[in-house]
Amino acid sequence: MYRSARNLQLFSAALSNPRSSNLRNICPAPGLLHSPLRMASSESFRIERDTFGELRVPSDKYYGAQTVRSTMNFKIGGASERMPIQVIKAFGILKKAAAEVNKDYGLDTKIADAVILAADEVAAGKLEDHFPLVVWQTGSGTQTNMNVNEVISNRAIEILGGKLGSKDPVHPNDHVNKSQSSNDTFPTAMHIAAAKEVHEVLLPGLQTLHDALAAKAEQFKDIIKIGRTHTQDAVPLSLGQEFGGYVQQVKYSIERVKAAMPRVYELAAGGTAVGTGLNTRIGFAEKVADKVAALTGLPFITAANKFEALAAHDALVELSGALNTVSVSMMKIANDIRFLGSGPRSGLGELILPENEPGSSIMPGKVNPTQCEAMTMVAAQVMGNHVAVTVGGSNGHFELNVFKPMIIKNVLNSARLLGDASVSFTNNCVSGIEANTERINKLMNESLMLVTALNPHIGYDKAATIAKTAHKEGWTLKATAVKLGFLTEEQFEQWVRPQDMLGPK
Amino acid sequence: MYRSARNLQLFSAALSNPRSSNLRNICPAPGLLHSPLRMASSESFRIERDTFGELRVPSDKYYGAQTVRSTMNFKIGGASERMPIQVIKAFGILKKAAAEVNKDYGLDTKIADAVILAADEVAAGKLEDHFPLVVWQTGSGTQTNMNVNEVISNRAIEILGGKLGSKDPVHPNDHVNKSQSSNDTFPTAMHIAAAKEVHEVLLPGLQTLHDALAAKAEQFKDIIKIGRTHTQDAVPLSLGQEFGGYVQQVKYSIERVKAAMPRVYELAAGGTAVGTGLNTRIGFAEKVADKVAALTGLPFITAANKFEALAAHDALVELSGALNTVSVSMMKIANDIRFLGSGPRSGLGELILPENEPGSSIMPGKVNPTQCEAMTMVAAQVMGNHVAVTVGGSNGHFELNVFKPMIIKNVLNSARLLGDASVSFTNNCVSGIEANTERINKLMNESLMLVTALNPHIGYDKAATIAKTAHKEGWTLKATAVKLGFLTEEQFEQWVRPQDMLGPK
Amino acid sequence: MYRSARNLQLFSAALSNPRSSNLRNICPAPGLLHSPLRMASSESFRIERDTFGELRVPSDKYYGAQTVRSTMNFKIGGASERMPIQVIKAFGILKKAAAEVNKDYGLDTKIADAVILAADEVAAGKLEDHFPLVVWQTGSGTQTNMNVNEVISNRAIEILGGKLGSKDPVHPNDHVNKSQSSNDTFPTAMHIAAAKEVHEVLLPGLQTLHDALAAKAEQFKDIIKIGRTHTQDAVPLSLGQEFGGYVQQVKYSIERVKAAMPRVYELAAGGTAVGTGLNTRIGFAEKVADKVAALTGLPFITAANKFEALAAHDALVELSGALNTVSVSMMKIANDIRFLGSGPRSGLGELILPENEPGSSIMPGKVNPTQCEAMTMVAAQVMGNHVAVTVGGSNGHFELNVFKPMIIKNVLNSARLLGDASVSFTNNCVSGIEANTERINKLMNESLMLVTALNPHIGYDKAATIAKTAHKEGWTLKATAVKLGFLTEEQFEQWVRPQDMLGPK
Amino acid sequence: MYRSARNLQLFSAALSNPRSSNLRNICPAPGLLHSPLRMASSESFRIERDTFGELRVPSDKYYGAQTVRSTMNFKIGGASERMPIQVIKAFGILKKAAAEVNKDYGLDTKIADAVILAADEVAAGKLEDHFPLVVWQTGSGTQTNMNVNEVISNRAIEILGGKLGSKDPVHPNDHVNKSQSSNDTFPTAMHIAAAKEVHEVLLPGLQTLHDALAAKAEQFKDIIKIGRTHTQDAVPLSLGQEFGGYVQQVKYSIERVKAAMPRVYELAAGGTAVGTGLNTRIGFAEKVADKVAALTGLPFITAANKFEALAAHDALVELSGALNTVSVSMMKIANDIRFLGSGPRSGLGELILPENEPGSSIMPGKVNPTQCEAMTMVAAQVMGNHVAVTVGGSNGHFELNVFKPMIIKNVLNSARLLGDASVSFTNNCVSGIEANTERINKLMNESLMLVTALNPHIGYDKAATIAKTAHKEGWTLKATAVKLGFLTEEQFEQWVRPQDMLGPK
Repeated sequence: MYRSARNLQLFSAALSNPRSSNLRNICPAPGLLHSPLRMASSESFRIERDTFGELRVPSDKYYGAQTVRSTMNFKIGGASERMPIQVIKAFGILKKAAAEVNKDYGLDTKIADAVILAADEVAAGKLEDHFPLVVWQTGSGTQTNMNVNEVISNRAIEILGGKLGSKDPVHPNDHVNKSQSSNDTFPTAMHIAAAKEVHEVLLPGLQTLHDALAAKAEQFKDIIKIGRTHTQDAVPLSLGQEFGGYVQQVKYSIERVKAAMPRVYELAAGGTAVGTGLNTRIGFAEKVADKVAALTGLPFITAANKFEALAAHDALVELSGALNTVSVSMMKIANDIRFLGSGPRSGLGELILPENEPGSSIMPGKVNPTQCEAMTMVAAQVMGNHVAVTVGGSNGHFELNVFKPMIIKNVLNSARLLGDASVSFTNNCVSGIEANTERINKLMNESLMLVTALNPHIGYDKAATIAKTAHKEGWTLKATAVKLGFLTEEQFEQWVRPQDMLGPK
Repeated sequence: MYRSARNLQLFSAALSNPRSSNLRNICPAPGLLHSPLRMASSESFRIERDTFGELRVPSDKYYGAQTVRSTMNFKIGGASERMPIQVIKAFGILKKAAAEVNKDYGLDTKIADAVILAADEVAAGKLEDHFPLVVWQTGSGTQTNMNVNEVISNRAIEILGGKLGSKDPVHPNDHVNKSQSSNDTFPTAMHIAAAKEVHEVLLPGLQTLHDALAAKAEQFKDIIKIGRTHTQDAVPLSLGQEFGGYVQQVKYSIERVKAAMPRVYELAAGGTAVGTGLNTRIGFAEKVADKVAALTGLPFITAANKFEALAAHDALVELSGALNTVSVSMMKIANDIRFLGSGPRSGLGELILPENEPGSSIMPGKVNPTQCEAMTMVAAQVMGNHVAVTVGGSNGHFELNVFKPMIIKNVLNSARLLGDASVSFTNNCVSGIEANTERINKLMNESLMLVTALNPHIGYDKAATIAKTAHKEGWTLKATAVKLGFLTEEQFEQWVRPQDMLGPK
Repeated sequence: MYRSARNLQLFSAALSNPRSSNLRNICPAPGLLHSPLRMASSESFRIERDTFGELRVPSDKYYGAQTVRSTMNFKIGGASERMPIQVIKAFGILKKAAAEVNKDYGLDTKIADAVILAADEVAAGKLEDHFPLVVWQTGSGTQTNMNVNEVISNRAIEILGGKLGSKDPVHPNDHVNKSQSSNDTFPTAMHIAAAKEVHEVLLPGLQTLHDALAAKAEQFKDIIKIGRTHTQDAVPLSLGQEFGGYVQQVKYSIERVKAAMPRVYELAAGGTAVGTGLNTRIGFAEKVADKVAALTGLPFITAANKFEALAAHDALVELSGALNTVSVSMMKIANDIRFLGSGPRSGLGELILPENEPGSSIMPGKVNPTQCEAMTMVAAQVMGNHVAVTVGGSNGHFELNVFKPMIIKNVLNSARLLGDASVSFTNNCVSGIEANTERINKLMNESLMLVTALNPHIGYDKAATIAKTAHKEGWTLKATAVKLGFLTEEQFEQWVRPQDMLGPK
Repeated sequence: MYRSARNLQLFSAALSNPRSSNLRNICPAPGLLHSPLRMASSESFRIERDTFGELRVPSDKYYGAQTVRSTMNFKIGGASERMPIQVIKAFGILKKAAAEVNKDYGLDTKIADAVILAADEVAAGKLEDHFPLVVWQTGSGTQTNMNVNEVISNRAIEILGGKLGSKDPVHPNDHVNKSQSSNDTFPTAMHIAAAKEVHEVLLPGLQTLHDALAAKAEQFKDIIKIGRTHTQDAVPLSLGQEFGGYVQQVKYSIERVKAAMPRVYELAAGGTAVGTGLNTRIGFAEKVADKVAALTGLPFITAANKFEALAAHDALVELSGALNTVSVSMMKIANDIRFLGSGPRSGLGELILPENEPGSSIMPGKVNPTQCEAMTMVAAQVMGNHVAVTVGGSNGHFELNVFKPMIIKNVLNSARLLGDASVSFTNNCVSGIEANTERINKLMNESLMLVTALNPHIGYDKAATIAKTAHKEGWTLKATAVKLGFLTEEQFEQWVRPQDMLGPK
């Protein structure tokens, strides 16, 4: 698999100078193994064995026997149910960090450096094809941890010129998994993956939406419109104020997600099998967390209590709860916007939503609020995901919660969908929203609620009479007021001023 | 506690003639013990003891030591969290049925008859004050079963002239609980209570709503209105057709609930402690189910598998799922009605909802759709209750599910709320809905979607041009069509006929 | 209703000295109206009228026509579905605060003081019988706000010697509801009620549980036991470490709840009908929040954005999410404890749970873990409540969310149940837990996992051979090791020391 | 795109004989377009245009402008969030059925036959690469319907020798979508897909599990073991009876799913845009349902009420409710099995679960119950999916529910996961379960609960004394009984016979 003596020489040279920044360049590219050509050759196999007997491993794959056995034992859901790539990437980061710390504690430098290189490739998503396992496996995620160990060790073996599947010179357990257990690595990868998805997808998405809504609130600040409570006509507010409510919801969405993060930043690494840290060295947990923090730029720390960190996933239930609250906000905002934009003639018609795709071919002006629909569907999904996370989180037993893959799948799905949908909703809807001021003014001026402003001038009873008569006869308030002789047109115009009804006095 | 020798004589006489229909009349009324006067005296106690020591039992209460101990150990939630009265009544029915069967199998007639009488009072809800326990007790409901046994035995003792708390001549366990265990009686009471609530409250409520909606569908069958898809203007349908969709939803709601009932009619009684039926006689299970069926008029049968009936509550999870589906239908219907009735001037305004309470004192015509709001709140509650039932149902272990009180509380709550809300919604909203035909016609006639009807006559392109121009200019379709010279006013009126757009041809 | 001239004189005197701390003492006690005697007289009525006509109001009730009309229009669920008393009490606090601020802004002192007195009684829960409305009413809670206004105005009228129902000299809308709308008062009362329940019931309950678990963790810190992952035997940890995980979960439960509070402390008061604050004075909102903070000792502030505060209840969805996470922790802890305490002979049997009530009369040692069962049922309920809150929170429209009563009912229920159950679980279970050290030691010593400790001494292969042989033959590790000749008994005892396996080295 | 004159000739010949069964063989295989070679060429494009302007469509793809535009507007979730292939296949069936019926009603035979052929390929999943759209699009699924229309029309055009993107001679709207609207086709495809998944994956999976459990129940029918209630020791039952409870749960699971199907068999096709069937012919709806029934072998019928069928998805909420109940059963069964199989030395240890993968390398006998873990994770996911479906189902408005893609995604996911997991759980766990009879007998014989059998012989009090003494001293029941002098060893053996405690007498 690694046939060039010269490459090996160069590689050894590079390793002998551990600071060499050229190491990466010298290594054979992982692409070698998953080029289309090699993919096509997936009918050749190497034979590996585990304690249960022989297994055929595709010769173009870095994974080994334990991965293959999992694919045989867990035929549940197919390819669309694969372990999220974010978890695999997070494992890459963790394995790199662990190898660096293990090197400090004495792991052979050559091995450690090869593991670090391979782990880097995993972290970069370059080896995605080598992670075939589904979410629906063992609830500890052990098989994915072993998948990672196998891929990294084989890739490291390849880098070092060894033979795939030989476990020599890099052993998946002894070296890649050193000082680790599935029981602490998988939850660590869960937290890394969740935190990165939050920071890379969700928060930027929410910020994008926030800024667009805030710009609209500013743009619409002088447009006065009828308010609606109980879905019924009510006293006026400005369209900017209405959008200001949405801005606040998104602002708090961001705060809520951030408020849940401190406990997500806690990493289980160092707890090993049951949380005691058996077979680790004092300081290992803290150093690994520091390394992960350095690699990700996020403030990860070692978990205050490793027993809790393995046996429960309250931190992710909490984060999912924050995402659930965000979804509630999104449902409200998207619902409002589609109703305010309903029409063109038989709806509320106060907003003009951007047209993004051909509506009905015959019905110009029919703009289906498709972005609102995508957003509200996402919101419903996140609410459902949250229940799955809640049920899984509540069913841990003793030293280990075994709903781990399911929990992280749902948390990542919620974060990604909300983040992506926020951007889509912003770019394809919010940013292009215009106020239908003609319609807004018409509804405002027809509103009977403005009569409220007359109370201080002509008293409640006369004001009520005006409103009742206007409603009954279908007249305007002004016409009614004048017809009833309660005040003059000029007085009406002076006293009934929506712009004076937008705040306390 | 039973002081009249004469009464006792009469009572004995009555018992000696088991057919005597006067027995009830002769017995001292239970009211004796929970008259306001006696309630006031709740500072006197009798001393009872259980294996843990002495306990003070209020002397005006039929319950005994085990009930008192539960009130001491489970101070959770207070009075509003009491075991639903429907469960207590169902226990009354079950205890009566069991006593009748036990009599067949040899239980002393005098004792059996007194138990039957006392159980009847429990079934009738006459002794409600004697059931103070909350839902949040042991998950098997054992303490409520013992509460029932204590109340019935003491009331039976009273009937027979004995001393409360003496367990003589009627013992709570040996006689009232004979051939029973909490583990089979509580699930039996759960099913009886759920089935009765479904038949007495839920189904009649849904039927009431169904009939009112059907009447409205008929009343509105000739009113043609604009349809709305994606909340946007679409091709027309009749208001009757729109309500017809709601009718179908409620019709299927009824079917769904009924479809879940066969498994609810299965009773666990006869399974005793773990489902084997230890300490019962062959035939006991079947006879009890027959008696319960006779007493309730519902087709109860003995459970096909008692192990399943104790260890799982899938039947109630299933019923809760049906209620969840009903709640989904209700949310849709109530939401539609409030939006169609929104306004009076700035909403859709197609329906005129009955005014039930003063809206804003100054705003005539502002009818808050309060019944829709109550209904949609109920719907949300039922969805939540369903998750609680699901979680509880999934967490049984081995031979017993111990989320029983929580499960039945939620199922009963959902059934009751949906049934009651259906009646309230019908009487205070649906029945009084009127169509705002002026508004409906206006929206219909302004609609651009009617242009669809021109396609066969002038072709798609010209029709589209008409629609686009009308939308851009704010004109009517007819005016636009004529102005563009594509057709005459007469042709327009002949071809664009909403009433011809309501079905296939 | 207020017949004593002397009382009135005294009252006026008191009012003329606004600092008089005797005012309360002089006022006729509210007990007058809801003594048993008066309750019994509930068949006498006074006639009130609203814009819909005449209504009969029980003459012994402070509420008025709008309350009565609500009881007629919303027959849903019955007495057990009443608006939680905590909401009523919170309204008392709010109405008092508003009256105080209104007095600053010029409300007649005599009226204001009477309102304040009456509101105080409401806040103290003294008038509970006068609040008959159910949760399933208008979704804005308007009817409960009016119920409060009616009760306070009538009670204030009574205090001032007026006639119930006269609205003179204290008008429910003009005086009690001054500068307020249902739309801002109800959400304000929701937040006050939720915050108080959290501080008075939930957090103290969690702290109690935390402290008891922490004491147990300390007590058990030297007891070494077998760990269990995947429910299967694993390497050892101390029982103190195991309980330490629970301690951490409860510690974080408290932190999670607290982290959700800042947004709950924001009060909508001052937003009036749609959030603009129409008809309030500048500063009103801030002053009311200050007063509420002073009255409750909690850091309430005025909401940053009133539009959000009326139209959405994200803050309560967020709090409910925190409660959901707490319930997940509780489910884990209570599940573990019941399994660790299972037996007495055929379970895990490591813990001895306190016996609180007679178990089976024949089965000594059968301690049903009833407190665990109550706690896990509560946890399931809270998960369900959370979904109801989520659905309600997501369905607000425009300027008002109309799922308010349902949302607060569920949040309060969750907080109360978790708080109460924590105390019950602590006092009746956790505090009395003892370790079954004999059993724990036996399981520990039989465990094959201890062989792990031999790896450094005799190598992995020999260690594995020992374990496999011991498992196959049913022998102890030590016996097997010696029999196989791999090491001496002394070496085994020196090397295999569970106490050395509890942490990193 | 279609270059062989001879092929065209043959094709025309085939078409002129509409009965030609050779048509399929003559057509160019669709593989042409998605061979790896062509995939590689995805950097070449054709230009298409819609009303919004020009778009670049990959020249190796059958889809067109509307599909491309959707990929641009909905960048949400990426490839793993694609519309489930089952929906695409169901659309293939529907489009074929519609084309057949349209042919009956006069659609050009050549066009119809080409559409039928192309639709067949879609139904067979051959064109999967041509359906890139994600679930998170318009809530009506319009874009997927158009994706299908584009692919089928282009593939039909290709079959007929035309030019991709030309819409000639087969137009995506006029021909492929004839008599259809997204609003009725998408829900039709939802129901077809759901029904097929239920019949092809879920029900066979459940049946497999049922049969395996039933075989185990039979195999274990004579093994008597201790029962457990409240997780505590209780009276005995047979292991066969215990498994019999699981059998019943799965039997009812199957019945529950089947009970939900009648309403799923109802197809919306024929309702077109709002349910009226505008632009269809009388009989079209019924004929299409008949064709779909014939093509699938499932009893599809036309929906009783098309308005309900478009505006609501109660039928799928109901089905999801059935799946939720199934998941509850699965959680119970898998939980029990993992606990009963816990150990090997410190658990309950009554079952020996098959070993499927290397457990810990050092810990022989540690069989992690990984299949149970996969199953319980699936159960949690299904519960979450159900909430998403419920929320989506409840939020339809007016004539159209716009949560369609989200709803069907979740229903299909639940059905697939439950079906697959049932098979995996059966093959890799249930079928290989063995009873650890030695352990079972040991626990049985140690149990104190057997004392119950002595009640009829020596009375309750003496029996209780035996049990209490045995528990206190740690003795066996027999030894205690004899030691206390209450009976002889022979009597004990005669009277205490677990095999006599397994049923009523």
